[in-house]
Amino acid sequence: MLSSKQEYVKRISKKKPALYINGKKIDNFVEHPNIKPMIDSIGLTYDLALKEEFKDLMVANSQFVNEPINRFLHIYTEKEDLIKRIKLARLLSQKLATCNYRCVGCDILNALYVTTYDMDETLKTTYHNRLLDYIKYVQQNDLAVSGALTDVRGDRSKSPSQQDDMYLKILEKKTDGIVVKGAKICQSGALVVDETVVMPTIALKESDKAYAVAFAIESGTEGVTYVLQNNAYEAKKRETPGWESGNPYGDRGTFLVIFDNVFVPWDRVFMCEEYNFAGSLVSNFTDIHRYVGSGCKAGFIDTMVGAAKLMSEYNGIQNASHIVNKITDIVKGQESCYACGLAAGYEGIKTKSGVYLPNALYSNVSKTLGLPAIAQAAINLADITGGVCVTAPSEEDLKNPEIGKYIEHYLKGSDSVTTEERMKLIKFVEYWIAGPHLAGAIHGGGSPITPNIFIQRLANVDEKKSFVKELLEIK
Amino acid sequence: MLSSKQEYVKRISKKKPALYINGKKIDNFVEHPNIKPMIDSIGLTYDLALKEEFKDLMVANSQFVNEPINRFLHIYTEKEDLIKRIKLARLLSQKLATCNYRCVGCDILNALYVTTYDMDETLKTTYHNRLLDYIKYVQQNDLAVSGALTDVRGDRSKSPSQQDDMYLKILEKKTDGIVVKGAKICQSGALVVDETVVMPTIALKESDKAYAVAFAIESGTEGVTYVLQNNAYEAKKRETPGWESGNPYGDRGTFLVIFDNVFVPWDRVFMCEEYNFAGSLVSNFTDIHRYVGSGCKAGFIDTMVGAAKLMSEYNGIQNASHIVNKITDIVKGQESCYACGLAAGYEGIKTKSGVYLPNALYSNVSKTLGLPAIAQAAINLADITGGVCVTAPSEEDLKNPEIGKYIEHYLKGSDSVTTEERMKLIKFVEYWIAGPHLAGAIHGGGSPITPNIFIQRLANVDEKKSFVKELLEIK
Amino acid sequence: MLSSKQEYVKRISKKKPALYINGKKIDNFVEHPNIKPMIDSIGLTYDLALKEEFKDLMVANSQFVNEPINRFLHIYTEKEDLIKRIKLARLLSQKLATCNYRCVGCDILNALYVTTYDMDETLKTTYHNRLLDYIKYVQQNDLAVSGALTDVRGDRSKSPSQQDDMYLKILEKKTDGIVVKGAKICQSGALVVDETVVMPTIALKESDKAYAVAFAIESGTEGVTYVLQNNAYEAKKRETPGWESGNPYGDRGTFLVIFDNVFVPWDRVFMCEEYNFAGSLVSNFTDIHRYVGSGCKAGFIDTMVGAAKLMSEYNGIQNASHIVNKITDIVKGQESCYACGLAAGYEGIKTKSGVYLPNALYSNVSKTLGLPAIAQAAINLADITGGVCVTAPSEEDLKNPEIGKYIEHYLKGSDSVTTEERMKLIKFVEYWIAGPHLAGAIHGGGSPITPNIFIQRLANVDEKKSFVKELLEIK
Amino acid sequence: MLSSKQEYVKRISKKKPALYINGKKIDNFVEHPNIKPMIDSIGLTYDLALKEEFKDLMVANSQFVNEPINRFLHIYTEKEDLIKRIKLARLLSQKLATCNYRCVGCDILNALYVTTYDMDETLKTTYHNRLLDYIKYVQQNDLAVSGALTDVRGDRSKSPSQQDDMYLKILEKKTDGIVVKGAKICQSGALVVDETVVMPTIALKESDKAYAVAFAIESGTEGVTYVLQNNAYEAKKRETPGWESGNPYGDRGTFLVIFDNVFVPWDRVFMCEEYNFAGSLVSNFTDIHRYVGSGCKAGFIDTMVGAAKLMSEYNGIQNASHIVNKITDIVKGQESCYACGLAAGYEGIKTKSGVYLPNALYSNVSKTLGLPAIAQAAINLADITGGVCVTAPSEEDLKNPEIGKYIEHYLKGSDSVTTEERMKLIKFVEYWIAGPHLAGAIHGGGSPITPNIFIQRLANVDEKKSFVKELLEIK
Repeated sequence: MLSSKQEYVKRISKKKPALYINGKKIDNFVEHPNIKPMIDSIGLTYDLALKEEFKDLMVANSQFVNEPINRFLHIYTEKEDLIKRIKLARLLSQKLATCNYRCVGCDILNALYVTTYDMDETLKTTYHNRLLDYIKYVQQNDLAVSGALTDVRGDRSKSPSQQDDMYLKILEKKTDGIVVKGAKICQSGALVVDETVVMPTIALKESDKAYAVAFAIESGTEGVTYVLQNNAYEAKKRETPGWESGNPYGDRGTFLVIFDNVFVPWDRVFMCEEYNFAGSLVSNFTDIHRYVGSGCKAGFIDTMVGAAKLMSEYNGIQNASHIVNKITDIVKGQESCYACGLAAGYEGIKTKSGVYLPNALYSNVSKTLGLPAIAQAAINLADITGGVCVTAPSEEDLKNPEIGKYIEHYLKGSDSVTTEERMKLIKFVEYWIAGPHLAGAIHGGGSPITPNIFIQRLANVDEKKSFVKELLEIK
Repeated sequence: MLSSKQEYVKRISKKKPALYINGKKIDNFVEHPNIKPMIDSIGLTYDLALKEEFKDLMVANSQFVNEPINRFLHIYTEKEDLIKRIKLARLLSQKLATCNYRCVGCDILNALYVTTYDMDETLKTTYHNRLLDYIKYVQQNDLAVSGALTDVRGDRSKSPSQQDDMYLKILEKKTDGIVVKGAKICQSGALVVDETVVMPTIALKESDKAYAVAFAIESGTEGVTYVLQNNAYEAKKRETPGWESGNPYGDRGTFLVIFDNVFVPWDRVFMCEEYNFAGSLVSNFTDIHRYVGSGCKAGFIDTMVGAAKLMSEYNGIQNASHIVNKITDIVKGQESCYACGLAAGYEGIKTKSGVYLPNALYSNVSKTLGLPAIAQAAINLADITGGVCVTAPSEEDLKNPEIGKYIEHYLKGSDSVTTEERMKLIKFVEYWIAGPHLAGAIHGGGSPITPNIFIQRLANVDEKKSFVKELLEIK
Repeated sequence: MLSSKQEYVKRISKKKPALYINGKKIDNFVEHPNIKPMIDSIGLTYDLALKEEFKDLMVANSQFVNEPINRFLHIYTEKEDLIKRIKLARLLSQKLATCNYRCVGCDILNALYVTTYDMDETLKTTYHNRLLDYIKYVQQNDLAVSGALTDVRGDRSKSPSQQDDMYLKILEKKTDGIVVKGAKICQSGALVVDETVVMPTIALKESDKAYAVAFAIESGTEGVTYVLQNNAYEAKKRETPGWESGNPYGDRGTFLVIFDNVFVPWDRVFMCEEYNFAGSLVSNFTDIHRYVGSGCKAGFIDTMVGAAKLMSEYNGIQNASHIVNKITDIVKGQESCYACGLAAGYEGIKTKSGVYLPNALYSNVSKTLGLPAIAQAAINLADITGGVCVTAPSEEDLKNPEIGKYIEHYLKGSDSVTTEERMKLIKFVEYWIAGPHLAGAIHGGGSPITPNIFIQRLANVDEKKSFVKELLEIK
Repeated sequence: MLSSKQEYVKRISKKKPALYINGKKIDNFVEHPNIKPMIDSIGLTYDLALKEEFKDLMVANSQFVNEPINRFLHIYTEKEDLIKRIKLARLLSQKLATCNYRCVGCDILNALYVTTYDMDETLKTTYHNRLLDYIKYVQQNDLAVSGALTDVRGDRSKSPSQQDDMYLKILEKKTDGIVVKGAKICQSGALVVDETVVMPTIALKESDKAYAVAFAIESGTEGVTYVLQNNAYEAKKRETPGWESGNPYGDRGTFLVIFDNVFVPWDRVFMCEEYNFAGSLVSNFTDIHRYVGSGCKAGFIDTMVGAAKLMSEYNGIQNASHIVNKITDIVKGQESCYACGLAAGYEGIKTKSGVYLPNALYSNVSKTLGLPAIAQAAINLADITGGVCVTAPSEEDLKNPEIGKYIEHYLKGSDSVTTEERMKLIKFVEYWIAGPHLAGAIHGGGSPITPNIFIQRLANVDEKKSFVKELLEIK
């Protein structure tokens, strides 16, 4: 049954994860100014699902438990599921202007669905049913699931086994489960969800088979320590949790998640040493995630376009042709990326498992369009706003009894807007142009080099040679 | 019934159009070295339709005459029709590496289908049935139909009626038909087809109602004079019709088509003074044509990718990383454009007339991606080829008894290829980097400014403002 | 005589400016974690001038006081001065990776030198000698001078006089001086210097003559209030003043400077109502400042190139061809901008006042190259670094007794580097990719539209028409 | 003494080179429509030198023969010589809108000047004085000198000696001279000059020492065969030598120059087997030539800017903001390239030989800016012109008695221009957008990959690492 935000918060409030923020151990994480925005963000994924207006995108009918479920827990066995998935991503980004923390988990479940099916078929293992049970469990309980891939990696010139405990690995296989050790980084959402699914981040060779491991854990499982990222945005959010930080839902919060001898029972293990399936699991995941990411980025940029237009009105420059052109340029970048994503969905292919995967070529091409689109959007938005996007005084200055009147007067824009509203918007622009999200656009869904390598492989260059040979009558 | 190339050629051979090429009147146009490649190009659209292998894309079932027809004559009343339309465009471009001369005609018929429906509904005119009869006629006879839009325009700061006979206009309305006068330029295909449909090129005001005219004529109709474009490529094709010109199907041949008091009977007139429908007819057409154009350009670029790979092998540099990257960059540009086009199709919208129009926003965005994709492809292809792409000796030099041995020796590449094959490919590269096609990519489907204006209008910026206001709690 | 950093700090420590930071009044500004890095930054401009190694660029011989002076106080009456000026800018950016706070002041003094000369010649005023006396004063006392231009502007669709006290204006002219009111924003350096010179930010009409005002004030003058910018970086710097913030010299600190009925004696007033010279003063300033800015940005990027190379070594990927290419691409952008700046200097023109101004066309072109160069550099640097550039734990986490060992282990890179060193570098990358400096590259030296307008005016298009007419024998 | 064009033409008219054009042997080359424009082009370099107006750039004072000489024969022993050299290049490109055919020769003479000096110093050879005598000879007789570098290369994966006679080589060393065999391609100017200097095109190893050869020959020397490039533009020029081809000076004419056992006397040999100096000779040449090339390209683009402005006036769209922006964008690209070139000159370095070489880093960066600048200029120019730039009827059509009146009417633009003038300009645009010059911009001065490799080497990345280490106190 679909839960409310309230029910979700109640569930996770009971957890006692080992959490550190900027060198301090945090006990009441639910109200911490760096964590609360994340909870509000996930909370919205619950509350929107209960609203009639958003049902079409937010809710799906599960093939497995035969009831309405949150689409973030859905397995895409119809092409329409793929299309709604990318539209869902855009919707949430429009509402949040930050991460919803549920994409990676959802995308891993689908990727695992395909790969466990293939493993079982080839190796006669029984991972697929085990995964199916797990999926039913999270669907029936409407749990929030995040995902963890990125290993810390250390010296990239060395493989996992050439280094001393850098990639997450299987330390021991026991009768009732496995023990794992290592760390995952850049983990979005981590402890504010009910569950986390974990998988490898690169293709593996036999010598690295101890690193071929996928499983699910409950948040706050014993042996797991969470360290929040620390960047300037987090510092500001801690200092002034009001509108000063620009986005009420905060920036994308990620964690270093340390697994120090963590036990995982077998019914939660979905890959264990099958190293030659790590590569296809990773590429299934990245094809999906880059696809979804183009919806996510288009939604972020929707808020930048809206902010750019609003700010141009606040500054009285909305009719200048260079302003109109700069906004149109943002839209071109944004819709190129999104349309390319859509095409990947519509040209998706049904795998043997029954799950639809997006067209890999278009999915990877869309990822290469997302970064320049976000970067240009942020630059044009800051351009339209003026230098004030990083030089403005603060909410506290505005509210200060001695200087507030000056700020009130001098930060005012056109008559259509109050100073406080303009400052809120200025801080939202700061969030985009001087916050951590641009880096997210670079590395989200994998570093820029990887989609290029995929595109090179996926472009059927030899077929294209044949067109020329036929045309020119060359043997 | 589907005709063969042979039947098509036989039909058009009977026509006696008034044709001029570089200042000379041409009588036997069918064998003229500037015209024959165009006929071969259209001929292929007939022959491919007869091959089992290409049936799915080349042939459609007509809703009107209830038999298989060439897809270039099809009306898109199913979304799948739209998708096959863009794939058809890509297929032909892969096969021809030049224009197939039937896209504009096909796209005008569909645009007219929508607009005549709307006109009849609003104005109680009877254009739609008239058009339907015409469509049945060309379908039943499997006629090749081209289209004519672009007026010569003269001084663009003046409207049609402010100038002296620059745009095509209705000179007289008679009981049995109308008399038109004016000229259309950049007309692809013109006299090597059976039929040409004509429509306005811009939105019109009441004062310009004489210019609101759409109709069909048979090629070679009395009063019509055709003047072939003259560019360097045409000159070379005239001089050496062998492989020297690079593409056996030639470049995109266009004509200045002069209408000097041409009579058109009423059953071939589809718009006559309904000036306030000119704008929507134009935008229906451009939405379709820019959509189709992204398939067309992707297909052209397929031949450039193939040529780039082949040439890298001929030059022995296929493994250099910068070569691999340059080819991958071509693919990224190409597939961005095409995927964006595909999305426009998949997100197409059914009009009241029953015809599906592609999503206008993505269609226009795809047009803006096509030009940089083609330009970069041509540049990278020439880069990989070397300066020889414009400095090579000629086929005649290779065949010359005195110096042929030198050419044979010094123009040779790697052992995998003969000198003649490498020279053929070099000339094909010249065709792309130093031929008229880059200009075609700029202006095909309208000058670069127009899609930008459409995008600006189609981006729902106000909705995006609402996301930000809701997020920041701004009134 | 050249002072030391120590002497400079001693001087400014005596000042009692009205300073607010994030809503709090600050008394001991010298040790405040947001202000101290600025003082260290300016301090370096003193200490480097005393080192033999940097004398050639740091020290000039004054034409006026006939002794060695800091080049930031020099008037460029030789072309060589211009060249050394841009090299000085690059040097400081290499050393600081942030603002040195003395460029704007230096550039205003030179711009005023030209404009006061022109005013006196045309209007028979006596500003030039007054300015000369002021220049001698700051040179003889080796004072740090910053500059203030940018008005808050409010509704940009209205001129200064159409708004209620948004631009800085002359409130009253008295026998002994003038009284001014208004605010300047984005003011780099402001209160940590000895002196600030103030000038208008736009060309003015007669109705706006009250806004045509230029003058100098001592820092902390009565009636002046300083409000520090508040962005996330400042918050982090306040919270953890160690290496956590990435750059020991901090980001570019700017202030909102409020002038509430501030009295300026006549000997410090350099423009007073001469509205028709405001435009040329602004363009003289921007020509110089955009010129200097290309050196500044090249120097910033030098530190990004260095960081990118170092990080690639720390990550063990320094030999991957895509990494090498990404670094080379940064260099191309950087050197394009800088070389274009250099050309502006070498092609500089001597004004009637004796001062050399850089070639305005190349100066403006270099500004348009700086922004994409910085943006691409930051993106490539973050790309090479990995997502960790915004997701890393903090210095405090590393030093925490419970989890420090995990951070120590898992944030390690190749053997060539300690975890602390790698984390320092990661935080430096965060500074560039997720700090306020990208916005600085957008608006420093004026918003992106203004150089474009200048270029359009400066390109001698009509002369270029004549080349074509002569070539084609067109009248 | 400075010659006139007439004297130059008289001199070369006496030569009897073995010349082939499109498979035909040509005897009276001087009047051939493909060759005459080249002669006119070089002729202008003589006539301009006699005009007072251009003396400053066209004429230099020789250090060796102590009289005024054409600057294309000058050795740059003053920095000012370098600066005038690039301005000379721009001037000629403005006048010709095509190649002047004397740059490569001039740049090779300077590169050889440096390298022969170094060879003599290291190897105790006597090449430098021999070269000096040759320079005096061409200066005293005011001879036109072209240069030849580019070998045909065959399979690039093989070195010269691994292939059978692909690169030009020393076949025999005799007492009175050497015998050479091979071919040079992409040779601009070749037989319409008095003299050609020849040098290797790549760095060489000991096994390739037979290919380390530099020398001078008189045009039409026995054993040398010239084959003109054949591209579409040449075909058109042959067919209609009037204004139809767009540029009266034609496109850049290059030749395949075949050396079949050609004897060169010792006094004309400047390198013979000194393989370890081939690399530095090549880089000295390319540093100079890429430098000069930025002036050349800026001058070409000057004619495109002029054409764009003229055409916008002819089309009545000169005030549209998107047109103004497109022209401004051309200027930005053009001046970025040129200013970067200028900086290379001003930051040039004096070699031990006394010759100034441009700064290699900026020279190579300027080359990377030239290609996108030319490509964007051509695209924007074609955009402003309309599709007619490749679809217009011909001069012959305009002059045809039957259809000329139609062309006259329908190709007319605004009232400010005759149809013939507009058509001339249209054909000039075709020349740029659909001619061989874009390929020239790609490969002139070496393929795009080579400047990138130079930049990578020349960027002092290790010094930049030290800035970061010092700043962050990293060891």
